[in-house]
Amino acid sequence: MENFVYSNPTKIIFGKNNLKRIGHEAAKFGKKALVVYGMGSIKRNGVYDIVLKSLSENGLEFVEYEGVKPNPVLSHVKPGIEKFKKNSCDMIVAVGGGSVIDESKAISSGVFYNGDVWDFFTGKAKIEKAAPVIVALTIPATGSESNSGCVITKEETKQKYSAHSPHLFPKVSILDPSITFSIPKEQTAYGAVDIISHVLEGYFTTKDINSIITDNYVYAIVKSVILLTEKILENPEDYNARASFMWTATLALNGMQSLGYKNVEFVNHVIEHSLSAIFDIPHGLGLSIVLSGFLKRLMNRGGKLRIAEFGKNIFQLRGSIEEISKETVFKMEEWFRKIGLKTKLSENGILEKDFITVADNACELGKLWGWSYEKKDVIEILNFQK
Amino acid sequence: MENFVYSNPTKIIFGKNNLKRIGHEAAKFGKKALVVYGMGSIKRNGVYDIVLKSLSENGLEFVEYEGVKPNPVLSHVKPGIEKFKKNSCDMIVAVGGGSVIDESKAISSGVFYNGDVWDFFTGKAKIEKAAPVIVALTIPATGSESNSGCVITKEETKQKYSAHSPHLFPKVSILDPSITFSIPKEQTAYGAVDIISHVLEGYFTTKDINSIITDNYVYAIVKSVILLTEKILENPEDYNARASFMWTATLALNGMQSLGYKNVEFVNHVIEHSLSAIFDIPHGLGLSIVLSGFLKRLMNRGGKLRIAEFGKNIFQLRGSIEEISKETVFKMEEWFRKIGLKTKLSENGILEKDFITVADNACELGKLWGWSYEKKDVIEILNFQK
Repeated sequence: MENFVYSNPTKIIFGKNNLKRIGHEAAKFGKKALVVYGMGSIKRNGVYDIVLKSLSENGLEFVEYEGVKPNPVLSHVKPGIEKFKKNSCDMIVAVGGGSVIDESKAISSGVFYNGDVWDFFTGKAKIEKAAPVIVALTIPATGSESNSGCVITKEETKQKYSAHSPHLFPKVSILDPSITFSIPKEQTAYGAVDIISHVLEGYFTTKDINSIITDNYVYAIVKSVILLTEKILENPEDYNARASFMWTATLALNGMQSLGYKNVEFVNHVIEHSLSAIFDIPHGLGLSIVLSGFLKRLMNRGGKLRIAEFGKNIFQLRGSIEEISKETVFKMEEWFRKIGLKTKLSENGILEKDFITVADNACELGKLWGWSYEKKDVIEILNFQK
Repeated sequence: MENFVYSNPTKIIFGKNNLKRIGHEAAKFGKKALVVYGMGSIKRNGVYDIVLKSLSENGLEFVEYEGVKPNPVLSHVKPGIEKFKKNSCDMIVAVGGGSVIDESKAISSGVFYNGDVWDFFTGKAKIEKAAPVIVALTIPATGSESNSGCVITKEETKQKYSAHSPHLFPKVSILDPSITFSIPKEQTAYGAVDIISHVLEGYFTTKDINSIITDNYVYAIVKSVILLTEKILENPEDYNARASFMWTATLALNGMQSLGYKNVEFVNHVIEHSLSAIFDIPHGLGLSIVLSGFLKRLMNRGGKLRIAEFGKNIFQLRGSIEEISKETVFKMEEWFRKIGLKTKLSENGILEKDFITVADNACELGKLWGWSYEKKDVIEILNFQK
């Protein structure tokens, strides 16, 4: 088990009817908020009204900044920084899913920096300060509501990169499962795969497999997500399933999912970032493709024992290592398809001729994240899913 | 799934050779420390020297306060408060297990309070401020290194009570598994039962059984502890087992173990507090007795389905609810005995004539904690283990 430092100061307020507490919590961090949100779905489902009313009732002024895209883009971050500064805001209130939270974090880190905020994503500069971010989470998936990272895409260069800093932990995140009832089935499925991937990156890339408690933590997350996703797809208004799913998403990327693991590589995320940077496909869909290929490749790269261990714990498989590992890889992809995801690249319009472009892009980001993969490894993974 | 608020600001520094970082961390909170420890075992195993050297090297002054007992007592807390104040300390450095940390927290809450510190334990007063506590953990078990509670015994009245406040979270806790190699087998076993009890209190008393993710979190902890304890008893210097065990102890009472559960009652802890307040038996030993009786009673009180669910997940039992639940209760006590604990009260010198005293004592504390048990319920539990 490897040494680690763990700290997560985000305060979580969880449960139904809690959204209206956002003003009270935000008021602890100043007088004026930049309210960041996406393409307007929060106006249709009532979230917008509740949040704005709560801010007003707690004496907060605010300016709105809408239009955050799924796979949020740098060109929208920069005007957000300007708007925050021009209006002398004290904090950001992020109302949305991972994209909105990530863009809010990027803005929060940019408002105290004189250079180009992209410097934080390329490693050219370190975040020394950030404005407080208060979150109203509407889509459980990325875990951004309780971690210190954010992912932004620079469109011109097709770079989907991330920045990290203890200053990026949201101060408070409000998780109200009842506002997630309206999330469409495919988005629920994307979220499910994202959650599973967050814990499997560490589980399958660690060079130290002696963290028994962390392995069991990973199994707890994956078993929960599989069961809960099926419950939600059957009945989207199952409050308890939505609630457990929402909390599972947070636990899957709050820093605990890889504690004690060694030299973890975010292989699947790196390759998926390239897929969605180039082809703008949803993150969770991309992950279902990459993870399926990643596991198949791992079978031929000494991963059978670990895959079998996973299969024993998740699918209660019994038999030889050879049999169980093979069955596990099959079952994972089968499950992705069961929840409606197309796990072949060609099914999503990505063709063999594109693989080298994807591999080039992934290796550029991979290098930055210190990974050990080469282009041929990426192509090998993609080939399994062509 | 019930609503909740979760926040845990303690910074964890985990892994071998980290003890020497304590001075660097403590120096962030002032210039002078009260170093609190127990009966001197830290002087024999080298921990004392490393901690004091680190404090000195980081320019910290300190005064020592030793003699904390297992089941720490109020009469030792009060002189600690005086020593802290007289020496104008800025913080407490707690070097030890749960007892030392709990007493340090009690002292930290007392130094800013003009009344009797016991007021915080009886609910007469609320902790509004506390001195920073920095922990070097030597015995994994209670989870006190990363939570907001502390338990102290008032000897005259045989009251083993607790106080809680967000101000009681340690600022930093250093967990170095390599210093736990010398923990004797029986103390390892006590710790194991304590950890298991921390997660089972919620699991078996919740009035809402729809927190699937929390149930799976509980299984992750219990499965880990059972496996790891056996590994440690076989080879006390198994670093990876000691490390996972240490981290499991923290996860078992860091606040996450009952999220979403409803009206949780710490039944086993309340009754055990009475046993150890009156008979001064080790906390973990007392818990192995009470938990065995508690589960037997639960079998006759509508608990079979939940017990069976637990048995399916922990012992991979298959069969009817009736069969599995019975087998689960048997297997738990069997396991406590396997790791060396005497789960009968008579084996520990506690006789049937004492049961009413225990029940009286437990109900007094139980009332304070708002529990639903009556004396006859406590006696019923004790009767199963006479």
